[in-house]
Formats: sequence, structure tokens, C-alpha cells
Amino acid sequence: MPPLRMKTAMDPTQLLARVRSTRHRTRDLARPLTPEDQVVQPMPDASPTKWHLGHTTWFFETFVLCEHLSDYRVYDERFSYCFNSYYDHAGTRQARAQRGMMTRPTNDEVARYRRYVDDGLERLFARRDLAPAVASIVEIGINHEEQHQELLMMDILNVFWSGPIRSPYREPRKIGVALPTPPLAWTSFDGGIQEVGHDGDGFAFDNEGPRHSALLRPYRLANRLVTNSEWLEFMEDGGYRDFRHWLSDGWGTVQREGWLAPYYWEEKDSTWFQMTHEGLLRVVPSAPVCNISYYEADAFARWAGKRLPTEFEWEVAARTGSTTGNTLGTGAFRPSTAPANCASGLSQLIGDVWEWTQSSYSPYPGFKAAEGALGEYNGKFMVNQQVLRGASCLTPDGHSRPTYRNFFYPHQRWLFGGLRLAEDV
Amino acid sequence: MPPLRMKTAMDPTQLLARVRSTRHRTRDLARPLTPEDQVVQPMPDASPTKWHLGHTTWFFETFVLCEHLSDYRVYDERFSYCFNSYYDHAGTRQARAQRGMMTRPTNDEVARYRRYVDDGLERLFARRDLAPAVASIVEIGINHEEQHQELLMMDILNVFWSGPIRSPYREPRKIGVALPTPPLAWTSFDGGIQEVGHDGDGFAFDNEGPRHSALLRPYRLANRLVTNSEWLEFMEDGGYRDFRHWLSDGWGTVQREGWLAPYYWEEKDSTWFQMTHEGLLRVVPSAPVCNISYYEADAFARWAGKRLPTEFEWEVAARTGSTTGNTLGTGAFRPSTAPANCASGLSQLIGDVWEWTQSSYSPYPGFKAAEGALGEYNGKFMVNQQVLRGASCLTPDGHSRPTYRNFFYPHQRWLFGGLRLAEDV
Amino acid sequence: MPPLRMKTAMDPTQLLARVRSTRHRTRDLARPLTPEDQVVQPMPDASPTKWHLGHTTWFFETFVLCEHLSDYRVYDERFSYCFNSYYDHAGTRQARAQRGMMTRPTNDEVARYRRYVDDGLERLFARRDLAPAVASIVEIGINHEEQHQELLMMDILNVFWSGPIRSPYREPRKIGVALPTPPLAWTSFDGGIQEVGHDGDGFAFDNEGPRHSALLRPYRLANRLVTNSEWLEFMEDGGYRDFRHWLSDGWGTVQREGWLAPYYWEEKDSTWFQMTHEGLLRVVPSAPVCNISYYEADAFARWAGKRLPTEFEWEVAARTGSTTGNTLGTGAFRPSTAPANCASGLSQLIGDVWEWTQSSYSPYPGFKAAEGALGEYNGKFMVNQQVLRGASCLTPDGHSRPTYRNFFYPHQRWLFGGLRLAEDV
Amino acid sequence: MPPLRMKTAMDPTQLLARVRSTRHRTRDLARPLTPEDQVVQPMPDASPTKWHLGHTTWFFETFVLCEHLSDYRVYDERFSYCFNSYYDHAGTRQARAQRGMMTRPTNDEVARYRRYVDDGLERLFARRDLAPAVASIVEIGINHEEQHQELLMMDILNVFWSGPIRSPYREPRKIGVALPTPPLAWTSFDGGIQEVGHDGDGFAFDNEGPRHSALLRPYRLANRLVTNSEWLEFMEDGGYRDFRHWLSDGWGTVQREGWLAPYYWEEKDSTWFQMTHEGLLRVVPSAPVCNISYYEADAFARWAGKRLPTEFEWEVAARTGSTTGNTLGTGAFRPSTAPANCASGLSQLIGDVWEWTQSSYSPYPGFKAAEGALGEYNGKFMVNQQVLRGASCLTPDGHSRPTYRNFFYPHQRWLFGGLRLAEDV
Repeated sequence: MPPLRMKTAMDPTQLLARVRSTRHRTRDLARPLTPEDQVVQPMPDASPTKWHLGHTTWFFETFVLCEHLSDYRVYDERFSYCFNSYYDHAGTRQARAQRGMMTRPTNDEVARYRRYVDDGLERLFARRDLAPAVASIVEIGINHEEQHQELLMMDILNVFWSGPIRSPYREPRKIGVALPTPPLAWTSFDGGIQEVGHDGDGFAFDNEGPRHSALLRPYRLANRLVTNSEWLEFMEDGGYRDFRHWLSDGWGTVQREGWLAPYYWEEKDSTWFQMTHEGLLRVVPSAPVCNISYYEADAFARWAGKRLPTEFEWEVAARTGSTTGNTLGTGAFRPSTAPANCASGLSQLIGDVWEWTQSSYSPYPGFKAAEGALGEYNGKFMVNQQVLRGASCLTPDGHSRPTYRNFFYPHQRWLFGGLRLAEDV
Repeated sequence: MPPLRMKTAMDPTQLLARVRSTRHRTRDLARPLTPEDQVVQPMPDASPTKWHLGHTTWFFETFVLCEHLSDYRVYDERFSYCFNSYYDHAGTRQARAQRGMMTRPTNDEVARYRRYVDDGLERLFARRDLAPAVASIVEIGINHEEQHQELLMMDILNVFWSGPIRSPYREPRKIGVALPTPPLAWTSFDGGIQEVGHDGDGFAFDNEGPRHSALLRPYRLANRLVTNSEWLEFMEDGGYRDFRHWLSDGWGTVQREGWLAPYYWEEKDSTWFQMTHEGLLRVVPSAPVCNISYYEADAFARWAGKRLPTEFEWEVAARTGSTTGNTLGTGAFRPSTAPANCASGLSQLIGDVWEWTQSSYSPYPGFKAAEGALGEYNGKFMVNQQVLRGASCLTPDGHSRPTYRNFFYPHQRWLFGGLRLAEDV
Repeated sequence: MPPLRMKTAMDPTQLLARVRSTRHRTRDLARPLTPEDQVVQPMPDASPTKWHLGHTTWFFETFVLCEHLSDYRVYDERFSYCFNSYYDHAGTRQARAQRGMMTRPTNDEVARYRRYVDDGLERLFARRDLAPAVASIVEIGINHEEQHQELLMMDILNVFWSGPIRSPYREPRKIGVALPTPPLAWTSFDGGIQEVGHDGDGFAFDNEGPRHSALLRPYRLANRLVTNSEWLEFMEDGGYRDFRHWLSDGWGTVQREGWLAPYYWEEKDSTWFQMTHEGLLRVVPSAPVCNISYYEADAFARWAGKRLPTEFEWEVAARTGSTTGNTLGTGAFRPSTAPANCASGLSQLIGDVWEWTQSSYSPYPGFKAAEGALGEYNGKFMVNQQVLRGASCLTPDGHSRPTYRNFFYPHQRWLFGGLRLAEDV
Repeated sequence: MPPLRMKTAMDPTQLLARVRSTRHRTRDLARPLTPEDQVVQPMPDASPTKWHLGHTTWFFETFVLCEHLSDYRVYDERFSYCFNSYYDHAGTRQARAQRGMMTRPTNDEVARYRRYVDDGLERLFARRDLAPAVASIVEIGINHEEQHQELLMMDILNVFWSGPIRSPYREPRKIGVALPTPPLAWTSFDGGIQEVGHDGDGFAFDNEGPRHSALLRPYRLANRLVTNSEWLEFMEDGGYRDFRHWLSDGWGTVQREGWLAPYYWEEKDSTWFQMTHEGLLRVVPSAPVCNISYYEADAFARWAGKRLPTEFEWEVAARTGSTTGNTLGTGAFRPSTAPANCASGLSQLIGDVWEWTQSSYSPYPGFKAAEGALGEYNGKFMVNQQVLRGASCLTPDGHSRPTYRNFFYPHQRWLFGGLRLAEDV
């Protein structure tokens, strides 16, 4: 199910509205930031805000306007080198680890670039003949930009974490009293042959298909995510110092990197704090644990005598179970601390933290990447990474779905990832 | 199916005979080597011969004799530090990358250590009461030592490759005329629900179980392995220079490491040579390609418009198909150049090269590692690696089986790995 | 001759005028830069502009105001961590290689910090009782800030060089026709016992003393600096490929780093260009070669059959010889291309490029660093570095003098360093 | 004073006797070692024993026999690649850090190579016409091999230190009771213009000349070396934790490497032990401190309120003062613990430990390296290193002299270096 063969369900008016709102939202996310905040790259994984602003724009320019708006003139020929991420088909580019070296184009220049390309998109939609194939690529562009909205929010937190003065991205917001965490409960699922993957109804990325049958054994999933409070138990029980819980590569990483707690956690006077978009705050015991690697999620599950779910166990449960999402809604930028509503099934599936699964990221049976640059979107990353399911509090509203496959390397921690326990029946 | 719960099918007499022959074979493999050859570590992956000789001995001493021979006295307390590989349960140890720093104990001392432990094993068997659990661990020790026999042969080739004077491990042997490669042909398999994993009949490692059902789609496998001749076509077609064939991590490795051909290949005067246990020899076109990484195997399959098989596709085929092995038998130390016998099904499944599969190495449903040190044998490596199936010309005779799961990191090349093509029906 | 014991020759009025003009000039140097340009650190050696602006301010705050203005209140306690460079006496600090991670304080905040400290300095001078010791530290602060003006200009060029879009710091200025280089000529000096080092008349850094006797042999110095044209001859003669010209450490660096030309040189269509503050310009043949390491300077001298001067040979010549400086005056930011005026002695001693000497940077006989933080200013760097003499086109007017000792590691190239040839009589 | 222009003072009979005894002594030094001990390279600085055996032989073969024995046939063309150290004139070679990869040629083969070349040297001397130039190169070969005798002894200690089983090179020898250290006393020297460097009488390396005048200020040198007991005081006073004593590069190294004591020192149960050729022994308080870097020597001197001598201060003192050497004589392989005999001047100048000086290693005025390979012997290393004077207990008897210049990088510790304090008058 390569992206180019997809058909969007939206009519041009709807699509244009989505283009506009998506483009505006990206700009709004960057608004609280100074020019200085937007240019720096604190580690190779985390790109500068300005780069995200430019890259998402270049994506529309290159794959939509250059291809499908006949009289379009490229804004600046040099920007393809600056803002191409990893598309070998689209030519040479600034090395990933050097994205923070680009003081030019400036923020103002990138803002002009955005407006120029937005104008191009308006002109495209003003024409009569928006072909379905073009509409489909526009829809990919929207979803692509939504992914970068989450990355931008992940990356800017890393910027604030890396400097000596830990400014908040925004002022802390009142969120009411954190209620007690409901007890862990288990929902059982039958297994058997199940259909998984996207069925082609609505947008999906190519890596979500083809839809196919999978054989599952009976299993149970926890009603809620693992909490900070439970994570502290793991820590207090020596979880980070006992090799027995860890995969060999994970244990090596723990020792080499000196991990003692989740990324962004810091101890002061025997109290744990956590770097958030609202600054360094006390760790909230009832909130889902976040910013942990696959290695840590797996170790915790072993310590707890459980295991991580497979991606299909999660998908089947998410499709069939009654679920409750983040009660804060879009723009929360932090996991909910409201009590998970567990009376009727699984809660916290969408909108708190992405959930690590034990499934390595690999192609579904029959998957073939499209020809050309957009075929590089997902397919070439299908090795060495683990699948995460769900969505985090940084994920744009409506971006995810039960078949959505997010993926990161097992050592990475700056993403908003946590875990839900699973067990065999 | 953790190893400790296994029951061996062999009676004590058979088992003792296997112990003796395995221990002798290891010593015989080291016989052509000078003391200098046996101490050096050319890269962290490749351990010194002397270390293999000591480690396999330590394994019997630690897990069999110390536990089950009541009056056994440890040969030298310091050897546990020297020869423990990765068993955190068994205490601290020489860092893997520093194994080549151990000039002491000398080769002669390690030979004495081997004899001392061999005597202990004889004494153990001379007693009346060899408990089944003990017999089972002895059997693991045998299979463990067989694995290290293959590693020893892989590693010593790396030693000879790394020095300026590329001595052969042994003199080249005449092997008759290389006949033409039979044309590529395809065998179809139906798919459906298939039982995979070891059924408990005969020895198996814990990672081969539990036996369980897997759902397969109809598929075809090539009748034979990809040959050097075909690999040269890939190279001549620019395979190592065209990003379109490669996974992203693979392409990064190709560029960073400057890969142009399989490991151990070297071009002189427009002719390709290959480092073998018989020295630097001309590449034989009809022989299976060897010493390639997963990245290369995957890229070749894409270039050919095919794909790699999954580990279960391979297993089902190997179990049901009529197969032909290496015609050279044990101790060939090089892939066969005899024509693959393809009239009646799949050939070259065992005894030429291990076959990379597209399956990442992960636990089977219901897998639980055993408590204690032997639980570290396989389970803790189940991330970041790919499964290989079959057996190579370095694998001891009878060591492998259709359910056997070998595993390496996708960038590793010093193992004797090649590939067989697969495709969807 | 530690700095603290020095007495300034300036009266308070003069001193205050110098403080003001120095502080203004730093601000003016940063004026053409965007906030983005000022925050990035392209390599550990090159600090962000904003850091220079903050550090020079912190220096006055810490060593002058905190110590000597009784009611002074520190602007922000956190800034000492941000802007301390290497003074262990002054506490912990941002790691040098992480200076580019500081998006906060912003440029605007640092500008406020500068004004606040400037006000403090005005208040200090408004009081009656400016003690000579305090005046002396103020004078060090001025000279310190002048050094950072040169560093700022070196570092910002590295920023523009490191990005994909090579913006100029300023627009190119017309400088008249480049006239032919005068032929190389030699001035002889007698040697013998000579007094070297600063005599205490006017400001000097502690490393310029104590003044002492040195024994020199008769020698000759070239009338002018080595030109780009001569450097191209060296390159065309294979200078970068012939080990015979190079020190062993230099040859290792050439091969490891792939040096083929001076830093900031780039070949396009067989023409050499050079990154300058005015952008990427054609290399001017008659201009002094610049941005070369000690290794390159030494290799060139060997290739030419000459040698580098010692620092005392240079000093004696500079003190006694009739010299001609950069004809462009302050703020040229590039070496002069006007003909060196060589009729009456040595030209280009001050104001084009610093001149590498064969002298390693070590203490003069009797040198003792002061107690406390200012004793760290120079003394602790007296190993592994080479002395440069003169001054470059980036050096503030009047900052240097014949006894001035600049010093860098022999592999460093981003400084504005060149060479003058010497030979024995 | 390049080596090729030197004339040896020895007649052919004397010279041949020296060749024989030197060659025998190298072989004898290796005799206690197993083949395993001789092949391993524990760090890039420390070469394998076998390599030293081969390299010194290659030196005679290449520069003496190939050039001057008309019918000489090279033993094995491949050995030049194996055993060339750093002579670019002599062609390509095994990378320094890869010397430990050479399992072949074996020890036995290298022993045969040594005998073959020894035979060649005998044949050379059996001819009538040993030209003075040839004799001079033979003498260099002898002195070269003596240098490698010391390196071999340094390097083999590093091998034993690096393995988990710390075997001794030889059994500990009784050396009588260690007597109390005499109190520190000072000998004064007048300074003034002094002649330094070798005067051409007897053998010297090219870097010891040309002899020239140097201007010295009055100074004092300590009567004896700094002892382990004094070093322990430095450690107990927090010497390794107080930045004030250290050069900036040294302090960075202390922190990065975690230095807490001299190299080869190890604390067990609050007692300090030291790895020696006789195994891990208790640190002897009265013995000179050894295996310290320049950074440590310099820090100690600052802590003590003194300084290191310059190389000329040492040379003038060594030439004029009444001196006492190591009382153990050749082959001690450890610093003397006999009381330094200080009644009449400076003791311990030769035969205990090399003495770090504050002089960077640079060419004497008028120094020019010879053309060709032997010109690479010393000249190309004249940057980034510090001069040591004297000789250590590993230095062959008679190898050193007052003008001898040894040199190492300031961070290196595996050499047998210590220090003697100096001060201004």
C-alpha cells in the first residue's frame, strides 16, 4: 500500500482547510520560541525547530508544487540541500548531525519561505483540476507535517534540557488535583486468526498495510499504562543495577551511559524532578512513565513478571476494546494525571504516551515500497527498530489510529514513550 | 523450553563418547596453529583460539563439575575471570574486547586445563549415578563447544586476514572440477497454519521453542543459494553504489565502511580473490556467496526483485522438502562447488553457508529463559539481531537441524552467511 | 610579572575612555549578525558570538565589580556558570564544547547584561578612590576583551564557513588594485646577548615577562610574509603529498584530515577560492597566506630550504627594524594586498597575519603565575603550543606590541596565522 | 650533526664485538618470555617483543647489508612491510597500532631472521674494506638496538600489566635492606654562557648537536630524585584533585583518565603496590618515583614550590658535578633503593629513572636532519614532546651520556620517568 497509490477521502475544500490548519499549527508551536531556541541542535537525533519549519515546507514544495503546479518557481535552489531530510532520490543534503550549523537561512527567511509555499498551495487549490493523485500527496504532506509537529515538540524539550538555564517552553498550567491511580486490572483477548493492518478506509501510511491475517494466542493487556509511581518502585528495587532484568544490549547501554532513571529525570534533595515543556517539575506519581527506552520498558516488564505486548495484540485490543484517551485533549504536551477510566476496558491508548511493543519494525507480508522518493518514507527503516503503538500527548489530535506504526531504535529515550504490560493467558 | 528442563535422549555411554569426540575435535582444530596465532584478537567480535579452548573448558567446569562432581577442585580460581564469556551470574570477567591481552595462561597451560577438566568429566561418568539433569547439562556443554568450534574457525580466518602475511590455515585441497551452476528454479509452498519450533525430540536449544503455530502465506523458495557469479553481476551493476537497493542503516554502513564487495574479497589486477582457510584463492563463480552481512543479503534480494525468506518459511521448507547438503562433508571449511542437486527440491540447505532471513531474532510465544546462568545462554540477545537458518561448511556435522536458530547483527560479515531468494506466490 | 602586580600608566579618565570604546567596539562587531549567527558553535575551538559578549562582561563583573564595587549586586547568579571560560578558581562552568547549547540567555538578555555591567563600571569610575590595583585589573579587562574581539571575528568566520549557505559577514569592499609582490629580500641581524621580554613600560600580559637576556646567533629574516602565490607553488610542487617536508605529527594530521590547501580554501573549476568575512572570494596571489597551521608553516619553510624564526629573533627584529604595517588600518578583517614596502627593512610585522615561530610556548626564566583566578590567564597553557608573534588584520588596533606572545596548538588553523621565513647566516 | 656524517671512534674489531654483544643481549632479554607474551600489543605505544626483535634486525639489513654488502640477498621481501617502524623513505609498513596483529612471521621465524642477518654482519666484517661511513651506520644500528632494548623492557611490562594474570617477567631478587633516604639538599650552579650539546667525541645521535652556546641563569638542582615517599605526600595532600598545581592540558588528562597515582600503581587494602618486572610489589618509599607523565612531574614541582630543570641546566650539572649512578648496575630493571650518595654533589643522574625537564624537544640552532631515511631518525619528532635527561634502570649500560636527549609526549607514563627538582637562585 505505497502512498502514491492511495486515494484520499477528502474533497478539495476539506483538504485545503486541513492544509491551512496544519500549516498554522506548526507556526503556532514555534511561536513561544526565540530565534536562538530554533537554530540549535542538541544531539544528532533532535533537529532544530527552524529545520522542521523548513523541511515540512520543502516537502510540499518538492513533492507537490514542483511536480504538479505548472508555473511554480522554486523559492531558493539552495534550500533543497538545507531541508531535505533523508530522501536520496531528492539529491544531496546537509548531514543530519550538522543541521544545527545552519544559521542561514534565518528564522525570518524560513517564515517567508513558508508563506511563499503556502501561497503556492493556495494557487494549486484555486485551479479546477486537482487530480486525485495530487490530492493524495497533499494529504501525505499534511500527515508528514503532523509527524514533524510531534518531533518539533520532542526536540525543543531536548534543547531546553541541554542548556544550563532550563527555561520552560510555556508557563505551567493548572490541571486540577491528581487523583489516585486505579488498580491494575487485566482484559483478556481470545487470539485466533485476526485481520490486522489498515483496510484502506481513510488515510494511512504505506507501512500500515497490506492488511493481512495474523495468528494470535490468547492474551491479556493491562487496563492502563505503567505509572511513575510503579517506575519508582522498580528503581528502588535496584532495577537499573540488576542485570537479570535486562537484554544484553540494554544492560551494556545502562552501564555505558550510566542510566539511573528515565531520561529527563533529575534528583534534587532526594526528590525526583522531570524536565517538561513547563520546566523542571516534580514527578507526578500517578502519571504514566515517559521518556524511557525500549530496553527500559522491556526490563521493567521482566521485573514485573510480565511482558510487553506485540504490535498486533495491541492493535486488536485497540480496535475492539472500549478505550479512553487523554482527558486533556490536543496540546496537552504532558501525559494526563487524571485517573484512568478503567471500568469498561482499556484506557490511555491514545494521547498519553506511545507504547513500546516487543515487535521489531519489519514489513508486512506483501509490502512493497513505492518507486521514487516517497518510497523512501518508511520502507528503508525496517530493520533494528521497535514498533510503538498508540499516540502521545504531543501527537496532533486525530493523527493516530489503531493501525498506526511508530518506530524508534531501542536505545532512544527522547520520544514520549512508555509501556503497558501484557501477559499470556 | 529452557535448557535445564531438557532431558537428553542419549544414554551415559553415548554421551561420554560424544564428550570425548567433541573435546578432541576442538583440540584438533587448533593443531595447525602456532601459539602466536592462538593469542591474538583481531577485532572485538573475533576471540582468540586460546580463549575458545579455555572458555569451552570453563563451561564444563563451572556448570557440570563444580555443581555435580562432589569432590571436584577448581583448576585455577583465576580462570573464571579469564574465560567467562558473558554470564553475569557467573561473576566478573575479562572484557570481550580485551581477550587478546591474555598472554597468560599460555597455550600449554590451557592444554593442561583442558586435560584436567576432561579427567573430571571421566570421573563424573565413572560414577553410577549420572542424574538426567546432569546429563542434560553435559549435552548442552557438547553443543556449546560445537558452536565454539565454528566460531574458532571463523575467528582464526580473521586472524590470518588481519596480518600482513596471509598464511593459510591449511594447504589447499583438490576438490575436482567445479561444474556449472544449475539454473535458478522455484519450489512452491502452500502456507496456512504450520507448526514451527522444536518438538522436544532430540537436543535443541531453548530458543527453538516452544513449538507453536504460525500462519504462512503461500511462497516460493529458490532451489539453491545465490552464487558468487550472481554476486559479481550485482557488483557490476553498481549494487554497492545505488542507494535504492539498501535499507537506510545498511546504506549508511556501506558508505561509512567503504564496502565494495563481500568481506574477505580482494581485487588484484581485475581479478577477485577471497581469503579462505586455504589462503587467498580466486573467487569460484559457482560457489555460494559467503561473508556477506544482512544488509548486503537484503540489498541483493531487492536488486533481484525478490526478497529474503522468513525464518518459518525456511523451516517449513526444510522440514518438508527433499534437500541436499554439502557434498564435501565435515571439515570442508569452504562452501561446496559441486553442482547443487536440484532435480528434487531444495539443495544446499545445510553445510554450505548460513542463510540470512528477514526475521528479527525474538522470543517465540511463551518463551521464558531459565533461572540462573544458563538462562543467559540465548534469551538476553533477542533484540537487534537477525535470524539465520541452515548451517555452514564450518558447522560441525550433525550440529544443526531444521528448527535451529542462529543469529547475528545485521552489519556482521565474518560469519559464513549467504542467502537464498524467496518470493510471494 | 603577574598581572595583579602591574601598574597601569593611564589615568582614570583615559582608562574609562578605553573601557567605553572597547565595550562599544565589541557590540559593533556583533551588529551585522543575526541572533541565529550568534548562538551556534561550529567546533569546540570556536565559541558563539553571544558567549564572547557574555564572557567579556562576566570578566569585568567577576574580577572588577564583585571585588571592588562595594554595593554591586550580581546581575544573575547563573551567568557565572554560563560565561566562565576556564577559571577553575571561579567555579564550575558550561563545558567548552557545549557553549553552543545555550539558547538562553538570549542575545537580548546578554545585551541587557552588558549594559548593566557597563553601568557598574561607570559607577566604579564615578567614585573618588580608584585604587591602582583596581585600575590595573580594569586594564587587563580591556586587553582581555580585545583578545576576544579577535576570537569573535575568527569564530564567526567559522560559523559562516560551516553552514551550507556561505553568507558574508559584510559586503566586499573595494581595495584598489593589488600591486605585484616585491621580491623576497633578507635583513641580517647580529645575534649576541639581547634583552627580550617586556620592560614594564605600558601594559603587557604576564607571559611577556620577566624581561631577561637571551643569546642569539646571527640570522636573517625575510622582508615580507609568504604570499598565497608562493603557497600555490608549494601546493603545485606536491607539498601536501611529500612526507619529507613534514614533522611526523604534522604528516599524520595531513593524512588523517586530508589537508590539501589552507583552511578556508576551496577549489572550483580549477580556481582557488577562500572564505573571508566578505564571503567566498578568489585567492589573491599577492596577499599573505593565512589560516595555516604550524605544521604547514614548518613544512613550507623546509620545502623552501629555510626555517621559521624563533620568537626572540622576531622580537629583536621587530624592536630594532624599520617596519611597515597593514595599510588598511583597523577593521580591515583581511590581510593587505598592497605591496609590502620593503625598501627600508621588514614589512608586514603587524596587522596582516600572526607569524608562527619555531618556539614552543613556555615560561620565561623566573616567571611565576599570580595567585588566584587571574594567575590562570596564561600560565597554565605553557605546554604543547607554539608562539606566534605580530598581529593579524583581526587584531584590534594598538593591541599588540613587539613583546606580545600569542599561542596556539600546532594543528590549529582557524586563527589568522601565516609565516615569515628565516635562515642562519 | 646528522648521523651519516659521523665517524666512529671504534676499530672494526671493537665494533664487531659490540655488534655481537648487543645482538645477544636483545635475544637474552626476550628469553624469559613465552611466544604468546611476545606477539601481543597492549596499546599503540607499546610494541610486541617480536616486533622489536624483527625491527632491529630489519634496521641492520636495510641500512647496512642491503646498502653495503654487495652480494647480500634480502631474507624475505615481506619483512620490510612488517618491521619498518616509521621510515617513510623505506616504504609502506604495518600501521603502528596494528603491530599486534602479526602472528606471522612466528617467533621462531624471527629468530631465524636474526641469525641470517647476524651472519650477514659477520660476512661484512670479514671483508677487508669496512668503509668509515659503513662503520658509522653499524654504530648507529648498535645504539638503535640499545634503544629498543629499553623499549622492549618498557613494553613487556605493559603486557604483563594488561592481562588479568599479572605474571612477573622474572622472579624477585633480594636487594638488601632499603636504607633511609638522605635529606633533600641543593647544589648551586652559576649560569652564564655555557657550551651544550655533543662535541663529536664518541658516538652521539644527531639531535645532540650542533654543540652551541646557551645562556643560563644561576640555578640549583636537588641532590637526588623525588622519592615514592614524597610522591605519597603529594597524593595525600590531594595533589591529583587540586587544579592549582596543574597545566591545563594536564588537568584535563587527569580528569578524563581518572589518574590518582603513578601508572602501574594499584591500591589494595590501603596499601600501594606497583607493577614491576618482578611482579606486583609493595611500593618502596625510598625508591625514586617512576612511571609518571610530564604533567605529573610538573604538578609535583609546583606543589613543592619548585620547578623542573631545563635540559641545559641538567646537562651542565651532569657534566660538571660529581655524580653517582645506580648501584645495581646493568640489568637492574628497577630503580635503586640504596641510599643516594649525596655528600659530594648530585646523585642518581644515570641508571634509575629518566628525568623530565621543562624543555620542549626542539632542534638545536643549526640542526639539519640528514637526507634519506636516517634523517627521519630524530628530526621529524621535534614538536609536542618534552626532553628527558639521564637514563633509567632499563637503559643498557653505557648507552647514555650527559648530552643525551630522550623525548616523550607529556601525557605518556609507561616510560621509566621521574623527576629532580630545580629552583632559581
